[in-house]
Amino acid sequence: MKKIEVCLSPELINQYALKGKVVVVVDIFRATSCIVTGFANHVESFKAVQEIEEAKALAKDGYLLAGERGGQKVQGFDLGNSPFEYQQDSMKGKKVAISTTNGTQAIVKSREADEILIGAFLNLETVAEYLLQQEKDVIIHCAGWKGSINLEDSLFAGALLDECAEEFTIEGDSSILVHQFFVANHDNLLNVALKSSHAERLRNFGIEKDQEFCLQESVFQVLPRVGKGFEIHC
Amino acid sequence: MKKIEVCLSPELINQYALKGKVVVVVDIFRATSCIVTGFANHVESFKAVQEIEEAKALAKDGYLLAGERGGQKVQGFDLGNSPFEYQQDSMKGKKVAISTTNGTQAIVKSREADEILIGAFLNLETVAEYLLQQEKDVIIHCAGWKGSINLEDSLFAGALLDECAEEFTIEGDSSILVHQFFVANHDNLLNVALKSSHAERLRNFGIEKDQEFCLQESVFQVLPRVGKGFEIHC
Repeated sequence: MKKIEVCLSPELINQYALKGKVVVVVDIFRATSCIVTGFANHVESFKAVQEIEEAKALAKDGYLLAGERGGQKVQGFDLGNSPFEYQQDSMKGKKVAISTTNGTQAIVKSREADEILIGAFLNLETVAEYLLQQEKDVIIHCAGWKGSINLEDSLFAGALLDECAEEFTIEGDSSILVHQFFVANHDNLLNVALKSSHAERLRNFGIEKDQEFCLQESVFQVLPRVGKGFEIHC
Repeated sequence: MKKIEVCLSPELINQYALKGKVVVVVDIFRATSCIVTGFANHVESFKAVQEIEEAKALAKDGYLLAGERGGQKVQGFDLGNSPFEYQQDSMKGKKVAISTTNGTQAIVKSREADEILIGAFLNLETVAEYLLQQEKDVIIHCAGWKGSINLEDSLFAGALLDECAEEFTIEGDSSILVHQFFVANHDNLLNVALKSSHAERLRNFGIEKDQEFCLQESVFQVLPRVGKGFEIHC
């Protein structure tokens, strides 16, 4: 039977063997939710970049620049980290260079995997369907918040485990923890996620609507994949 | 109000500011359970040492040598990692040098704290009473298993948060996760802990009785404290 397990922080990913596996990167508030929303609105591609300067250098190649640091849009960039920005008609066909505090790091640290997918509540079912039909073991890599574990990514990991439970062996204690946490809170996701310290931090920036948007389940049927040079295509 | 939070792995402890705080180190299966049992049976002191060779060098100073690697007793050492070994009459008045896979590392990585305590289910109430009457913020530092999160340490962290909830602000998403996990499983600790992958690994060494012993709540009224040179006294 295929195995699925959860890594709750990029600081712990070196505990996992990624080779030969599929990694699902998740950063619910808000990088992976933005990427999924972008593809649902016909963005051509994203490119995950670690440094702000590296993103800036891509502007001359026609990339829009997207990014935040500590939850705030980077000065001079075209886009911040609100999923609503990625729904604009003007995004159609655009290439976007994206650099975020947590999500980008989780993508880069997943590079040894055979395949890297972008997961969010917004495309939960599409990710789950793909995982079920393929043959490899899976690691759900939560981006967390500056190295710490967060509730919203844990809830997503639990939700994805739940979708996969029948055809995968659920491995590891982190998986047991977040699976039970999701099952206990399934009917109450928004309240739980908003209790989180990260959500509180973000709430100071007035983004309750973003958070509500990011917790919608399976509204987009897109499956973003990270390729060479951390280019993300759908 | 005082704050209490949980660090689920020594690999994440650098995310936490330890100065000025009390750290409770926990390694339920089995280092901190052994230390607590030892003091309840009149061991004079423990000394946490990282390397096996370092422990061996202490033998000439009259220390008993205790330790495991990967769950197995170190060859040539006097004691392994079963709490029953620490209940023998012959332990009375002895000094013990202890080196374990996970617990020792968690103690050493807590060194910047103002005070380091040794916690286990076995002395839960004594630890909680002390935390409630002192004035500092608290971090519960779970030793985990080779850097990974484990269920038994998470359950203990949740139990200690629960004891402290009225007089502390519970901080951080890891805390919310393990507190809810403990509350949901309080009546079923043994079954949950034995589901854990770490427990399964240890079960291969035939130590079910150890695990049952380590999950007893508040049977010993001892409060081991880590001092200079990682000497532990009660």
